[in-house]
Amino acid sequence: MDESGQGQAVAGRRRERGGRGAAREGRGRGQGLGRPFIRRNIPPYDILSEENLLKIESAADRILAEIGIEFRDDPAALDLWRRAGAKLDGVRVRFEPGMLREVLKTAPARFTQHARNPARSVEIGGDAVVFSPAYGSPFVMDLDKGRRYGTLEDFQNFIRLAQSSPWLHHSGGTICEPVDVPVNKRHLDMVYSHIRYSDRAFMGSVTAEGRAEDSVAMARILFGDDFTDQNCVILGNVNVNSPLVWDGTMTKALRAYARANQAGVVVPFILGGAMGPVTNAGAIAQSLAETMAGCALTQLERPGAPVIFGNFLSSMAMRSGSPTFGTPEPAIGSMVIGQLARRLNLPLRCSGNFTTSKLPDAQAMTEGTMSMLAAIHCGANFILHSAGFLDGLLSMSYEKFVLDTDLCGALHTYCDGVQVDDDQLALDAFREVGPGGHFFGCAHTMGHYQTAFWDSELADNDPFEKWEAGGSVDAAQRANRLWKKRLADYEPPALDEGVDEALRDFVARRKGEAPDAWY
Amino acid sequence: MDESGQGQAVAGRRRERGGRGAAREGRGRGQGLGRPFIRRNIPPYDILSEENLLKIESAADRILAEIGIEFRDDPAALDLWRRAGAKLDGVRVRFEPGMLREVLKTAPARFTQHARNPARSVEIGGDAVVFSPAYGSPFVMDLDKGRRYGTLEDFQNFIRLAQSSPWLHHSGGTICEPVDVPVNKRHLDMVYSHIRYSDRAFMGSVTAEGRAEDSVAMARILFGDDFTDQNCVILGNVNVNSPLVWDGTMTKALRAYARANQAGVVVPFILGGAMGPVTNAGAIAQSLAETMAGCALTQLERPGAPVIFGNFLSSMAMRSGSPTFGTPEPAIGSMVIGQLARRLNLPLRCSGNFTTSKLPDAQAMTEGTMSMLAAIHCGANFILHSAGFLDGLLSMSYEKFVLDTDLCGALHTYCDGVQVDDDQLALDAFREVGPGGHFFGCAHTMGHYQTAFWDSELADNDPFEKWEAGGSVDAAQRANRLWKKRLADYEPPALDEGVDEALRDFVARRKGEAPDAWY
Repeated sequence: MDESGQGQAVAGRRRERGGRGAAREGRGRGQGLGRPFIRRNIPPYDILSEENLLKIESAADRILAEIGIEFRDDPAALDLWRRAGAKLDGVRVRFEPGMLREVLKTAPARFTQHARNPARSVEIGGDAVVFSPAYGSPFVMDLDKGRRYGTLEDFQNFIRLAQSSPWLHHSGGTICEPVDVPVNKRHLDMVYSHIRYSDRAFMGSVTAEGRAEDSVAMARILFGDDFTDQNCVILGNVNVNSPLVWDGTMTKALRAYARANQAGVVVPFILGGAMGPVTNAGAIAQSLAETMAGCALTQLERPGAPVIFGNFLSSMAMRSGSPTFGTPEPAIGSMVIGQLARRLNLPLRCSGNFTTSKLPDAQAMTEGTMSMLAAIHCGANFILHSAGFLDGLLSMSYEKFVLDTDLCGALHTYCDGVQVDDDQLALDAFREVGPGGHFFGCAHTMGHYQTAFWDSELADNDPFEKWEAGGSVDAAQRANRLWKKRLADYEPPALDEGVDEALRDFVARRKGEAPDAWY
Repeated sequence: MDESGQGQAVAGRRRERGGRGAAREGRGRGQGLGRPFIRRNIPPYDILSEENLLKIESAADRILAEIGIEFRDDPAALDLWRRAGAKLDGVRVRFEPGMLREVLKTAPARFTQHARNPARSVEIGGDAVVFSPAYGSPFVMDLDKGRRYGTLEDFQNFIRLAQSSPWLHHSGGTICEPVDVPVNKRHLDMVYSHIRYSDRAFMGSVTAEGRAEDSVAMARILFGDDFTDQNCVILGNVNVNSPLVWDGTMTKALRAYARANQAGVVVPFILGGAMGPVTNAGAIAQSLAETMAGCALTQLERPGAPVIFGNFLSSMAMRSGSPTFGTPEPAIGSMVIGQLARRLNLPLRCSGNFTTSKLPDAQAMTEGTMSMLAAIHCGANFILHSAGFLDGLLSMSYEKFVLDTDLCGALHTYCDGVQVDDDQLALDAFREVGPGGHFFGCAHTMGHYQTAFWDSELADNDPFEKWEAGGSVDAAQRANRLWKKRLADYEPPALDEGVDEALRDFVARRKGEAPDAWY
C-alpha cells in the first residue's frame, strides 16, 4: 500500500464506522454491529446427493465438449483457449472433460478484498458472507415520487444509505444507472462516488474494456500500484450472454480485471425458458458450464487471479413470458449451485433479494425473503443484490433498500446459528426460576439483556392498540421515514485530500478525452 | 370404518377436490395440485453437530432429573408416572436420564390421520409435510372492517377458505375463537363446522377433558367406533405451561386423546426471557424436556398411541418486553429441534407462519416467510399455523390467509427439490438451440409448458406499465379480492345426511345438558 492509501486507511480506522446512523441502527444490540462481514456458524444446506451432483457435472462436461461455447469478438481470448488446448472451430470453443477443472486449480478458494478503511476489508470465500447492494437498475422509486430514471444523485444516495447501514459489508457497483451522466463517462463518476461516499470495498465498470481499466486505475490511485498488483481492491461483475455465448465486451473486461489481479464475478443470468431450459437440472448444468469457462479464462489471463463463481437462475410466468423472481425453483437451484461451487473450491456468488413487485409490499418481501434466504442457505460468499430491488430488477426502491438492510441484519443473527455452551444452556437459570416461575428478572436474563434476540429497527412489535394509536403505519411507510432520516444523518467518511484531488484529476482528464456518448 | 363413514368417503371421492376455487387456483399448473400432502424431495437442514446435539440432550436430561416437571391437578397422571418409575415429590416429577426415551419407544414414527374423504387423508411423520391453518386467535381482521372479535361465521369462513385452497392439507382446529358462542359449547360448533364445511382431516378441542371427549365422540359418529379405536381421525393440540409445568387441564385432554388412540400434539410455547431463558440452547433443552415428558405420558396412557413432538420457540423485544415472531432465533432453533425430534424417531410439529405485523404488509411477509421456511427446513411433518396469523398470533387476517396459502403453494414446488434425469438435464434442448439461440419454442420447453415453474395466483409479474394501467394494486388489495371470490365460489363438500343428522343431534343434546358459560 502506498502512502496515500495507508494514510487513508489510518484515517478510516480513527472514525466510528458508519457515522451516527449506524450507531443508531444498532441501538440496544451489540451483537453483530459493525462486523466487516459475516463468518457463518451454520453449514450450507446441501440438498442434492453425490450421485445427482455427478450427473449434473457430467451434463455440463458434455455441453462443454459436444456443443461448446462461443467466444465472440475477442481474438485474444481465443488465443488463450488455443494455447490451453481447447478445440476451436471459428469462435466456437469445445473443452475436453476435466480440462477446465484443471485450469481452475490455480484460482484461490478465498481472498480478501481490501477496503480503504482496513477494518472494513472483506473476506470472500470459505465461511465468509458479504452483503452488497443491488446492481444495475435503470429506474429508482420511492413512495413520494414514484418511478423515474436514476440519476447520479440517486446513485450517491444509495451509497450513503449503504454506508449508513451496519448490515451491509460492501458498497456495491452500479447500484442504479446514473442516467443523467453520459454512458461513456458514468463509470468515472460511479467509481469516484463509491470511494468518496463510502469507506467500504466496491465494484468497478465492465461495460467496456477501457472502462474496466479506468476503474482499476482509480483503485490504483487509492491503494497504490504495488498494493493493487498484489491484492484485490476492486471487483468487476460480468455476465454470460446465455446460452453458451461469451461476448467480447464481457471477456475483455473480465480479462482486464484478471490482468490487474482483480476479481471478476462470473455470472450467467439464465432466465429458464428463454436463455436456458425450463427445467432446473438443465439450467444448473448450463450455468456450471458457462461459469467454469469464464472463471477458467481468468486463470489463463493471469494464473492465481481471484475470481468468483457466480450464478443467477431465474424463472418465467409461462402464460405471459414475464420473468419471475423470488420463486422456489431458483431458490432450490441455488442450493445445488452452491454444492457445485464448493466441489470446485471457488468462492460463490448466488441469488440475492429479488421480486417482481412494483411496491415494497407483501409480495416484495415474500419473494425477497425466499430468495435472500436461499443465498444464505446455498453458502454464497458474496451476495450481490442484497438490498433495494423491486420491479423485476428494473428499479431500486428507497423503501425496499432499508427493508432489505433490516433483513440483512436479521441474517447476521441467523448465520450465528446456535451457540452451545454452559452459559447458553442456562441450567443455573432453570434452577433459579423453577417450574412455573418466569425468567424476566433472573440473573441469566439480566446478563444477556444487551445482546439477546435480533432487534429489528423496522418491525412494529407493539400491541395492536399502541400501533393503532400511533397512526396504523405500515412497514413501507416506516421505511419511507427511515431512509429519509438516514440520508439526513449521513456523514461522509474522511478521505485523504491528496487522494481525493488525484481521483478528481483523473476523472476530469478522462472525461475531457472523449465527447459525451449517450448509448 | 362403519357404513356412514364409508358412504361419506365414497361421496367425497366422487367430488372434484376443493370445488371450483381449487381448480382455478391451480390453473396453468398441474404439478402439485390436489396433493393430499407433500412428500418432500429435499432433506432436512441439519445445522448442529452431533457433539452439540448431545450437549443439548444432556442438558434436557439434567433438567428432567435435577429440577423435574410439575404435573398439577391431575392425580391420574401422577399415578402413571409413579408406576413407570419416576420419582415423585408432591406434584414434582423427576426422571432418570434415559427413562423417557425408553417410554417413547412405543410411539409410532409415522401414522395416517384419516379424513372423511379418503383421498385427503394425511401422513404425519417421515418425509410427509402437512399444512394446517393457524390456530387460536381471538380476533379476525380484514382490510374492509379492520379488527374485531371472531365469530362462528368467521370460523366457518376460514374453513371454507382452507377447503378452497389446494395448498393446504388439513382443516385445522380453533382457526379463530368463535367468541359469539358460549365458551363451554364452542367446541361442538367448531368440530361440527370442520366436518360440515371441509372434507379434510381436523383437530378437536383441548380446553377441558369433557370437550376433548366430545370432540372424539363426534369423530366416532363420523368414522365409526371400531375404525376410530384403531386409526387416528382427530388431533388435539396441547400446550405446556412453560417453564416445566403441565397443567391438569392439558394433561387430561392429552390423555383423553391418547386413550381413544388419537394423536396429541405436544407443544411447549416458550417465549424466551419469559417462559424460558433468552438463549436458544437453553430454550431448546427446555423444550426437549417438556415435550418428551408430555409425549411419554401419552404412551403410559396407551402405548402405541400416535403423538406429535411439538415445539414453539419465540423471542422478545428486550426493550419493551413485547413478544416478537418471525425472527431469526426461533427459525434457527427450529432446525435444531428438528434434529432432536428425528433422534427420538417422532413426527414433528415446528414453527409456522408468524409475525407481529398488524397488516398484510412487507413486515408480515418478511417474518412470515422466514418462519415458514424454517418449518420446511427443520423437517416438520405437521405445520400448524401455516396460514392466517397477523398481530402476534392474536388475529386471523382474511388477506394474510390467502397470501399464506399462496406461499404454501410455492413451498410445494420448493419441497420437490431438483429432479435429475435425462429429460430434466435437457441435453437435446441445448443441441437444438445452440449458442446464442433461445429456448422459447424448442421442443423441450413446449413439452414442459404446463408444469414448468411455480405460478403464483397473487404475485403480479407484469411489467410496470401494465401494472400501473391496472390501477397500481398492491398484494394486500389483490388478496382482499381473492378471498372474497373464494368465499363466493365456495361449494361445501357433500356430507351423508344420516351422519349430518347424527352429528346435529349430538351437538343439540350436549348443548342442552348445561347452561351457557362465557368464561
